[in-house]
Amino acid sequence: MSKGEDVVLLDFWASPFCMRVKIALAEKGVSYEAREEDLIGGKSELLLKSNPIYQKVPVFLHNEMPLCESTVIVSYIDETWASPPLLPPCPYGRAQARFWADYVDKKLFDAVRDVVLSKGEATEAAKKELIEILKVLEGALGEKDFFVGKAFGFVDILAIAVSSWFLAAEKLGNFQVEAEFPKISGWIKRCMQKESVAKIIPDPEKILEFALMMRKMHGIDH
Amino acid sequence: MSKGEDVVLLDFWASPFCMRVKIALAEKGVSYEAREEDLIGGKSELLLKSNPIYQKVPVFLHNEMPLCESTVIVSYIDETWASPPLLPPCPYGRAQARFWADYVDKKLFDAVRDVVLSKGEATEAAKKELIEILKVLEGALGEKDFFVGKAFGFVDILAIAVSSWFLAAEKLGNFQVEAEFPKISGWIKRCMQKESVAKIIPDPEKILEFALMMRKMHGIDH
Repeated sequence: MSKGEDVVLLDFWASPFCMRVKIALAEKGVSYEAREEDLIGGKSELLLKSNPIYQKVPVFLHNEMPLCESTVIVSYIDETWASPPLLPPCPYGRAQARFWADYVDKKLFDAVRDVVLSKGEATEAAKKELIEILKVLEGALGEKDFFVGKAFGFVDILAIAVSSWFLAAEKLGNFQVEAEFPKISGWIKRCMQKESVAKIIPDPEKILEFALMMRKMHGIDH
Repeated sequence: MSKGEDVVLLDFWASPFCMRVKIALAEKGVSYEAREEDLIGGKSELLLKSNPIYQKVPVFLHNEMPLCESTVIVSYIDETWASPPLLPPCPYGRAQARFWADYVDKKLFDAVRDVVLSKGEATEAAKKELIEILKVLEGALGEKDFFVGKAFGFVDILAIAVSSWFLAAEKLGNFQVEAEFPKISGWIKRCMQKESVAKIIPDPEKILEFALMMRKMHGIDH
């Protein structure tokens, strides 16, 4: 990082969207200050001012210029700090990466959340949807080590962050990613061998505890 | 276009997502073959094979390499044919464009469609949502001629295509974009002065007719 550069992340430890930004910064070797937001007690003035549309973490501030939405932020990080590139060099490869990034964005976390924050028939419906999504991703991965291109990159960052919630979804949805999706399971292991991922992804048991607390807050469990 | 280049669009005239691709190609001066899909009678084998995930138009084939999802395709067109650039040159400007592109993608067409394909209280709720979205976009536009940067670009292409359905939403939702959103109204006029837009956007009355036909197909009107 150049001297005098100011990189701040308005963060929340259990948010997969914040994890994406932190993994991207770790990949690029960028130092930053993570400020943990109190999402329950009250969001910071800086968060509300910097993200008036969604009022959500992550907010990324580069020399005080704010950016919101994790996928937009990861693209910005990739364009601002060149090495290692997170997107393939050719336009067609980049487009394929953006297609799968968009698929992950539209589908994966919402399905995980719907399994985690539901009960009874709603959980069964959400689980069915999540399994369909994981089947598509298993097919997209195929025999490759990573989603697009030969190296860990853009789509892997977006998806591995969401995988931090898989244990919670497995326990609450009563299924097993490892048993049913061997390719995704192998991909998670490969990603976790990377220091940039291993040091950012929280202990899945802690995410499960957090999910159980959220279920109580939402009146799903008593 | 270089000799021997093969650019094909699997198209549907009333789809704002297809219009986006056609406007981007017109901006870049790229010749292409548009093949109208029969979405009611039966989609082509090429469509089903090229877009197995969503089975939707637009599908873009560049030298037979398929791409899906309009925003991904417009990005690819921008990176493949350099002039004029659709995104700003600096990473921060590009990130702002991607933020608003994402906002338009997540919100605008769904709200328009929900007004057009509903009745009674559901229409009122959808109209309220659409008006909130238009207020946000009115604010994002501010005193600028176009959404991001000084020239017509990425966000303008995504949003102007959706505006082709505004007349249908106005008639079926009983409100007026022009009266309530002067900045959006001025922006639409500026965009329509561009040949790349004017020659692609269909007559809004035809879109209204199509919307009325869809309402009958969906059992909303009899």
